[in-house]
Amino acid sequence: MPYSDKYWQKEEILPRRELEEIQLKRLKWVAKHAYENVPFYRKAFKEKGVHPDDIRTLDDVARLPFTNKNHLIENYPFGLFAVPKDEIVRIHTSSGTTGKPKVVGYTARDLENWINLCARCLYMVGIRKKDVFQNMVSYTLFTGGLGFHYAAERIGAMVVPSGTGNTKRQIQFMLDFGTTAIHCTPSYALHIKEVAESMNIDPSEIGLRIGCFGAEPWSESLRRKLEDSFGLKAYDSYGLSEMNGPGVAFECEEQNGLHIWIDHYLVEVVDPESGEVLSEGEKGELVLTPLTKEALPLIRYRTGDITYIMDDECSCGRTHPKIHRILGRTDDMLIVRGINIFPSQIEHVLMKIPEVGDSYQIVLTKRGALDEMTVRVEVKDEFFTGELADLERLKKKIENALREELGIRVNVELVEKGTLERFEGKAKRILDLRR
Amino acid sequence: MPYSDKYWQKEEILPRRELEEIQLKRLKWVAKHAYENVPFYRKAFKEKGVHPDDIRTLDDVARLPFTNKNHLIENYPFGLFAVPKDEIVRIHTSSGTTGKPKVVGYTARDLENWINLCARCLYMVGIRKKDVFQNMVSYTLFTGGLGFHYAAERIGAMVVPSGTGNTKRQIQFMLDFGTTAIHCTPSYALHIKEVAESMNIDPSEIGLRIGCFGAEPWSESLRRKLEDSFGLKAYDSYGLSEMNGPGVAFECEEQNGLHIWIDHYLVEVVDPESGEVLSEGEKGELVLTPLTKEALPLIRYRTGDITYIMDDECSCGRTHPKIHRILGRTDDMLIVRGINIFPSQIEHVLMKIPEVGDSYQIVLTKRGALDEMTVRVEVKDEFFTGELADLERLKKKIENALREELGIRVNVELVEKGTLERFEGKAKRILDLRR
Ligand SMILES: [Zn+2]
Ligand SMILES: [Zn+2]
Repeated sequence: MPYSDKYWQKEEILPRRELEEIQLKRLKWVAKHAYENVPFYRKAFKEKGVHPDDIRTLDDVARLPFTNKNHLIENYPFGLFAVPKDEIVRIHTSSGTTGKPKVVGYTARDLENWINLCARCLYMVGIRKKDVFQNMVSYTLFTGGLGFHYAAERIGAMVVPSGTGNTKRQIQFMLDFGTTAIHCTPSYALHIKEVAESMNIDPSEIGLRIGCFGAEPWSESLRRKLEDSFGLKAYDSYGLSEMNGPGVAFECEEQNGLHIWIDHYLVEVVDPESGEVLSEGEKGELVLTPLTKEALPLIRYRTGDITYIMDDECSCGRTHPKIHRILGRTDDMLIVRGINIFPSQIEHVLMKIPEVGDSYQIVLTKRGALDEMTVRVEVKDEFFTGELADLERLKKKIENALREELGIRVNVELVEKGTLERFEGKAKRILDLRR
Repeated sequence: MPYSDKYWQKEEILPRRELEEIQLKRLKWVAKHAYENVPFYRKAFKEKGVHPDDIRTLDDVARLPFTNKNHLIENYPFGLFAVPKDEIVRIHTSSGTTGKPKVVGYTARDLENWINLCARCLYMVGIRKKDVFQNMVSYTLFTGGLGFHYAAERIGAMVVPSGTGNTKRQIQFMLDFGTTAIHCTPSYALHIKEVAESMNIDPSEIGLRIGCFGAEPWSESLRRKLEDSFGLKAYDSYGLSEMNGPGVAFECEEQNGLHIWIDHYLVEVVDPESGEVLSEGEKGELVLTPLTKEALPLIRYRTGDITYIMDDECSCGRTHPKIHRILGRTDDMLIVRGINIFPSQIEHVLMKIPEVGDSYQIVLTKRGALDEMTVRVEVKDEFFTGELADLERLKKKIENALREELGIRVNVELVEKGTLERFEGKAKRILDLRR
């Protein structure tokens, strides 16, 4: 079933020129497909004065209109679908806690493509038939669960579809089933570490080899912490339900950037304000055009994720470019005293300081007209000595490190381990009280 | 993909003789497979003085040892697996709220068989490519979710993997997505009806055509209530994770007994006490031997479910025998003043009385040495007049109907609609306070 010992599909190592030929052919197809079958796109193309036949090179993608999440919501539930309802075999939705959710659909062929893209990722980091893959994310409407579930099963690993919650039982299953690979959010992995320790289990003795972590931004320092605690290799996973789900981009064993599968997703990075296309290496908003999606061909979809393209040759042999791990979201980006700050920058600083524990919170307030940023930081037990002078020194040290990274003054408040809220899914670390 | 307009697989209508030839061949295989690869079975066969080669006819199954759920638990997690761990691609577990759960495993071929058995069931009741199938049961470790999920997807229906909970959103999805078929527990279907009514939505206008209801025993009267409320056809689904999950037996459009797929499951009904094999039509415990399971070949598995075999020709053309809907569980069976009572008998009586609402509870207590049974019954709003004489009359009417069915005196306590607890999964209707 796999193409080779090292690659799940041969497309992973096609020469770039061949990949680009495939991209151009598919871009023409998807533009035509959207134009002919989705009234929204016919209108949008016409408003931009562009026609699918105008696409002659890959750069012509920049002539096409953007799509954003509001377009999905305005066309709830099926208004952007490009095939008859009969052809849809699955739908997923965003959580949509307020108002209408985003609904995405799949044909049987879409699912098949998606499974293989996810399998490319898991196979790339070494997951094989012999592995036990414990999938600790939501199943049902969230794409993260079923996406990797099908892929790990396709590879032939033993899939433990344990879902979220009941951390003690998750740890017991890991021990009893001989789990070697896990999939969850990085914050949940940290939580598992803490719970294991509270059960007097050394996380490094669980036997995990591989951690696939996604659905929220995380830092290099957190990676090191997870790798050191569990004795595993931790990989960053990137995807979004509008592009099928997980399996859009994933780190290879180099752990330096995520290969993005350009035979299925055309990649652009644009200026979030102007929408202008940026060059390799320039930070901006990731814009993706799925090239093979039959059910939901979203043209130039604004992901809201900030990254940049790293197009070096990779030692793993894959010819697909890489993107940098997500730096933040256009809508998570904090503007504090006029300066753009991503929470991941703060996490990065904190995780480098040995006294800092596993959790932190960013609190934004106003003092008069001025923004105030306070970072509440848990201190490891062994450093929480109760000696006021020690704590004062640590506080200053963190404040200095943050000012250096961010370029603004930040208040630090030290708290005891276990004070801050824990999250089983995506962590909510920002408390913005300015409005 | 389907064999015909009417049948998912041609095995559904093979002449009985051919089915029996397949059964015998497979029984020999599975006995040998278990004997050769599972030390537990080698020992159990030897203790019974039987060898796989002794199987010459289907009746010889009675010479083999029984398996029960304790054997699974004692061999936690993988002690009864008959293939190397590498070959397992999925595991599921029972909820195991106390102590160790039952763990079941699947090879890729087991999954393929399971998907097709579930697809046979859904296709049998008319679910097709054009349908929208909302799967309102737990995913992850419970087999009910993923089992029918894969099958409905295989048929090509639009699967809405909405899982449990958030009933208002479930109803909104039904309306927005045009859901035509649902899968849930019968008690949850009743709950949906109540919630829809509280939202001023007439359940019959949702547009549901087909309801697949399983995971708990229910009555003919509840079927009528659900069919009348939603304007759908309601079908009984039977399965258990030890036999893959759902897809063991399912009603056809006749709604008179569940076809049980004997090319994959050898069926016996035994006396729960003596273990003696009973004849067609005799009530007893269902005992199943999966004939094709590679990962977990459970020989003569004691399901704990009470039913009987109905082996008449069926107008649907399927040649597989039927079992009566489950009458109760050997361990749910209530012994009250020495009389065997199944909760389903009580439900059956209640649902025939027009004044009775959607919920009830059975409370068992002791008065001195004697068992006392009280049934708490919700009365529909329009009959809860506050006129004491009316309520007293209704109470007597229900008490008489119950005494007639059960043969013992029962106290009835009438309560207002909404008083008793609602259940999103399996209903827990029995409160045994005798010990
Ligand atoms: Zn690489
Ligand atoms: Zn029939």
